[in-house]
Amino acid sequence: MNHRQGQIFANPQVDACIDLMRRVAERAPRVHAITNFAAQVFTANLLLAAGATPSLSYAEEEVEAFTTRADALLVNLGTLDRERRAGIARAIPAAKAAGRPFVLDPVFVDRSPPRLAAARARLADGPAILRCNAAEFVALADAPADEETVMARSRAWGCVVALTGPVDFITDGARVARIENGHPLMARVTAMGCAGTALIAAGAALTDDPFEAATAALLRLGIAGEIAGGAAQGPGTFQPAFLDAIHAADETAIRSLARIS
Amino acid sequence: MNHRQGQIFANPQVDACIDLMRRVAERAPRVHAITNFAAQVFTANLLLAAGATPSLSYAEEEVEAFTTRADALLVNLGTLDRERRAGIARAIPAAKAAGRPFVLDPVFVDRSPPRLAAARARLADGPAILRCNAAEFVALADAPADEETVMARSRAWGCVVALTGPVDFITDGARVARIENGHPLMARVTAMGCAGTALIAAGAALTDDPFEAATAALLRLGIAGEIAGGAAQGPGTFQPAFLDAIHAADETAIRSLARIS
Amino acid sequence: MNHRQGQIFANPQVDACIDLMRRVAERAPRVHAITNFAAQVFTANLLLAAGATPSLSYAEEEVEAFTTRADALLVNLGTLDRERRAGIARAIPAAKAAGRPFVLDPVFVDRSPPRLAAARARLADGPAILRCNAAEFVALADAPADEETVMARSRAWGCVVALTGPVDFITDGARVARIENGHPLMARVTAMGCAGTALIAAGAALTDDPFEAATAALLRLGIAGEIAGGAAQGPGTFQPAFLDAIHAADETAIRSLARIS
Repeated sequence: MNHRQGQIFANPQVDACIDLMRRVAERAPRVHAITNFAAQVFTANLLLAAGATPSLSYAEEEVEAFTTRADALLVNLGTLDRERRAGIARAIPAAKAAGRPFVLDPVFVDRSPPRLAAARARLADGPAILRCNAAEFVALADAPADEETVMARSRAWGCVVALTGPVDFITDGARVARIENGHPLMARVTAMGCAGTALIAAGAALTDDPFEAATAALLRLGIAGEIAGGAAQGPGTFQPAFLDAIHAADETAIRSLARIS
Repeated sequence: MNHRQGQIFANPQVDACIDLMRRVAERAPRVHAITNFAAQVFTANLLLAAGATPSLSYAEEEVEAFTTRADALLVNLGTLDRERRAGIARAIPAAKAAGRPFVLDPVFVDRSPPRLAAARARLADGPAILRCNAAEFVALADAPADEETVMARSRAWGCVVALTGPVDFITDGARVARIENGHPLMARVTAMGCAGTALIAAGAALTDDPFEAATAALLRLGIAGEIAGGAAQGPGTFQPAFLDAIHAADETAIRSLARIS
Repeated sequence: MNHRQGQIFANPQVDACIDLMRRVAERAPRVHAITNFAAQVFTANLLLAAGATPSLSYAEEEVEAFTTRADALLVNLGTLDRERRAGIARAIPAAKAAGRPFVLDPVFVDRSPPRLAAARARLADGPAILRCNAAEFVALADAPADEETVMARSRAWGCVVALTGPVDFITDGARVARIENGHPLMARVTAMGCAGTALIAAGAALTDDPFEAATAALLRLGIAGEIAGGAAQGPGTFQPAFLDAIHAADETAIRSLARIS
């Protein structure tokens, strides 16, 4: 991703990250996460480590009850069986009717045409935030993942786009943030990105600014990844160390390690 | 939960816990667990750590074969998709016909009316043990979770009620046990309660006294949680430490740490 | 399993194991794994630790797209719900049409007659490799699991048979390998065998010799298990240590610890 000279958001963004981190722990927002099988457990454990309260049901009869009682909805397309498709189709209108933000994670849309079609339909439903990687963005947008195109699509889609990669790029079409924190072992553990999107949703439950929610969560995730990467012997010990680092909510570490512009 | 003066069960209960712990490791009871997606892996790993043998299928065509070949059945309502509902409807009669105890875990019935209805129907099927938290009990019983009400419902439902929380309360309507062991990190790991119910089922396979099975398993879980909580740096490292503590089956630790009355 | 005097494959087999280990890390083969719920996360994490790229979808609409874009297909029968059965029925022809090897894991066919029937049908579809334990082999073959019978069935079925246990026995009907590496804690963690089959599939993507792929993967798994068993305090800490050992890809350890004949 190209780096451009831009406004330096470092201190306010770090303050916002710490503020949201504290509020998640204090207010324990409920996140209803319709997510894929490989991500369910890690998503729940990441939310619990951060102090949030997860629920995971996708059964058609239940999603409206769970979504209405939750503070935010995560829709992850990584398992698209029949019951989940039906559950998603009910959960999104329930979230919108209840005024809850919904966050979209279009996992692997670059690999499966039916999934790409489903993701485009969900994008038209108006998520507050879209979280994806470059390959998924390219498939969704049918366009390259350079910063200008991402900003233009953010405006066209009417949602914050949080593009994760070696450098995370977050934009609401006007503001931009770039986060350089992270660790290579994050790519050697399944569902790290999916679980990260759930942490974005936890923040989105507690602020009216989805750009701030996405930026704060991705900064927190990247720093926890660096801390865990320094403590781990490999991808096996990385995962528990990562959850510990999220739970520790170490404000000093965030202030000293943040690389955001 | 109120503490009342009562008979001291400390030594016999601790002996029973150690005795059942040994027998689970020696006899490797088969537990067929129809449980939710977030709990499946941790449930299987907890049973394996204790020396039991888990199976997890819920497919309609298979549950009778698995249940009949198992020594106890766990029914957890945390994922209520169509195939699981159909599987549960077949597994319970198979367990009863084969004389196997079934243990019911009505996860999150306080959050979803359709799930509450399903839980009440399953409760009418006659589980040996109901394991739930206070919010789930209140929803199921439509009554407060004070000790007298829980005892009355245990008698009315004809099953042991194991109410977990900061202090666990177990009753068969006549006898009561209160367990104060545990650690706050147990609430920061998903599926801890669900997996605990599976350990109750493993014990229920090996004793005719479901009150003893529930009490022994919850005591063992609470003590393993305390040991793991002392060794862990957070919820990530807590989970492997907890499985290690279950596997260690440390009789001396159980005798010295038990807080049961 | 009987030990017979036989040709010593030690050095070439160890060389092949190290060679395939390097190539998996360098070429990151895509393995599409249709596997059971208890195995999905550990399978994905094991493949990622080895450097491979997992995908897990089983939805009927998507499996052909995923299988065609993958380098090998794993079919594990450990969850046989309706959607997976339909997905498997589409994925196998797609793999064969694309010239991708498929590896079959008939989990627990000894416990469920409908699953046994499904496994026999899939075996007739022509997997490159069948990975199972002795009880599963006995059920599938309706014959004992002695070495001569296993070799005869390997020839009759036209596939490599990799029989895992205290000593792993791998044969293509002509060649045989016996691996004595491993650790008792491998049997106290769920889905270890299922995840191991996925590593076999990763190797099968990169060699034309499925006997070599199966032998190399099982040798690597057994040695990683020994390393992890030496570092772990129990089954909880075993699992992260095992993934770390796979990721470390320590050639010296493989050369010094291999017990293969």
